[in-house]
Amino acid sequence: MVEEPAPEPGAGQVLLRTKYLSLDPYMRGRISDAKSYAEPVRIGDPIVGRAVSDVVASNHPDFRPGEVVLSHAGWQEYAVSDGSDLRRLDPAVAPVSTALGVLGMPGMTAYTGLLLIGQPKPGETVVVAAASGPVGSLVGQIARLKGARAVGIAGGPDKCRYLVEELGFAAAVDHRAPDFPDRLREACPDGIDVYFENVGGEVWWAVFPLLNNFARVPVCGLVANYNDTKLPDGPDRTTMVMRAVLSRRLTLRGFIVTDFADHAEDFRRDVGAWLREGQIKYREDVVDGLENAPEAFIGLLKGRNFGKLLIRMSPEP
Amino acid sequence: MVEEPAPEPGAGQVLLRTKYLSLDPYMRGRISDAKSYAEPVRIGDPIVGRAVSDVVASNHPDFRPGEVVLSHAGWQEYAVSDGSDLRRLDPAVAPVSTALGVLGMPGMTAYTGLLLIGQPKPGETVVVAAASGPVGSLVGQIARLKGARAVGIAGGPDKCRYLVEELGFAAAVDHRAPDFPDRLREACPDGIDVYFENVGGEVWWAVFPLLNNFARVPVCGLVANYNDTKLPDGPDRTTMVMRAVLSRRLTLRGFIVTDFADHAEDFRRDVGAWLREGQIKYREDVVDGLENAPEAFIGLLKGRNFGKLLIRMSPEP
Repeated sequence: MVEEPAPEPGAGQVLLRTKYLSLDPYMRGRISDAKSYAEPVRIGDPIVGRAVSDVVASNHPDFRPGEVVLSHAGWQEYAVSDGSDLRRLDPAVAPVSTALGVLGMPGMTAYTGLLLIGQPKPGETVVVAAASGPVGSLVGQIARLKGARAVGIAGGPDKCRYLVEELGFAAAVDHRAPDFPDRLREACPDGIDVYFENVGGEVWWAVFPLLNNFARVPVCGLVANYNDTKLPDGPDRTTMVMRAVLSRRLTLRGFIVTDFADHAEDFRRDVGAWLREGQIKYREDVVDGLENAPEAFIGLLKGRNFGKLLIRMSPEP
Repeated sequence: MVEEPAPEPGAGQVLLRTKYLSLDPYMRGRISDAKSYAEPVRIGDPIVGRAVSDVVASNHPDFRPGEVVLSHAGWQEYAVSDGSDLRRLDPAVAPVSTALGVLGMPGMTAYTGLLLIGQPKPGETVVVAAASGPVGSLVGQIARLKGARAVGIAGGPDKCRYLVEELGFAAAVDHRAPDFPDRLREACPDGIDVYFENVGGEVWWAVFPLLNNFARVPVCGLVANYNDTKLPDGPDRTTMVMRAVLSRRLTLRGFIVTDFADHAEDFRRDVGAWLREGQIKYREDVVDGLENAPEAFIGLLKGRNFGKLLIRMSPEP
């Protein structure tokens, strides 16, 4: 934690104070120099991240103090912006924190990955891991709205109960259960047509034998592997996976939400409507104080959060 | 080899005598009881396979003796058919053997897998393994016709020379070279946008690091693995592949040519036209005598053939 004076907004700039900071698994990649789709954070720079921010001062014609915006402020209390990366939020439409969750990047990740890659059809079985998180919970609920059978994988009985009782999943399976693969098989008597991959690891190996012919696997995250420092021991199962891709005609396709930026309007229209109509629900896990962000982020990678993880900044002293 | 009297055609049936028998890698799966997309051959039954056959006798209104048909006669000299699986061939349009190669199942495999899954764009790099075979040679030539840069992988200098000098591949790389991965990298200075997977094994691992963001991998065959009796030793590289699928947004998609049966007319129209116009070439590797089929088939799995492998039946004694 570094304390220094808040920056001064220059000509055309806006001074922002962070209200909510979003914590998301992708940040793990930014604090590693392993080759990835984005540059890592440089040592000394604040960790990147989306935030909901108050406009504190503005030399920009389009923003006024008191307005609330979606920003890329990152892990810091104050930030300046030239306005190009800001989007004004209307608290009358939805709680502003949703711009970081169900109506933000995680929601759009679920919407685009499921509908553009997963393409669930009525009656099909859609399985999603990390199912009580902001991406997984929306994947399952959209699958249900599209007439598919949503099966969630989550850690612990509370999360599993929430998926079925609150979100309308057809079934939920606890990946911590010692007989997890058998339970997953029982929860998917017709196999799996879409597996929305958020986690990898042992969950993947439980899903793999259940994938039906022509199953689609949008690969969105592999949080179980993000802290790996070496490859797992053998045998090398790559050949087994590739043979299944061939004989079962599987599609494995990775994506990053920004690949589907063209679909942002569709996403906000559809998910906004479902939310207003009460057809989908969301849940937030709010942790107070930036000083608690590192511990909360470690917990996120271990599945300790329950719902969209947000850091709420302490009020000014 | 079993000798028995030729069958008698019953009511509505056609008696066929095999002229050319097609040998294809997929047959390896039919003589294994490993789970696959088709039932294995039962012990005692002839091995399945497409053939070009002469109609010897007919009790079917649509077929007359002396006609030549595409059939599913399999590894036998005579066969009967009710006509539903036959397609009449016109020797004036193209040599009848092409119905087993460039204008048949292998050609359609190349056409559909490359165009529907690979979707090469002008200027992109398309790599295909087993590139001098009936599938690979057409993949590369269609890629070239679509404005992409075709790079072939084949075994030995003769095949590599043939790809560049006869078929117009931009480059060809010998997978037997000790520095094969380096040579492949040199042949693909802009990386790989489409990898048409026919072989798997070490060729896959040489291709893998070169796959560009958004690369497409139609998975058509894994001939290097068909005789495996166990998985390779570790480490387990599955995680590495999945991480690349995610961060490079790769698409791996398996297919069987029959999945794309709706595209048969497009295939025959386009490839027929390219063939007539001299824009594509094909090569056949003809082995005489059904008694030589087993050895020829073993050679096929080891890459000993050069072009589409056919068994030409000996004339009647």
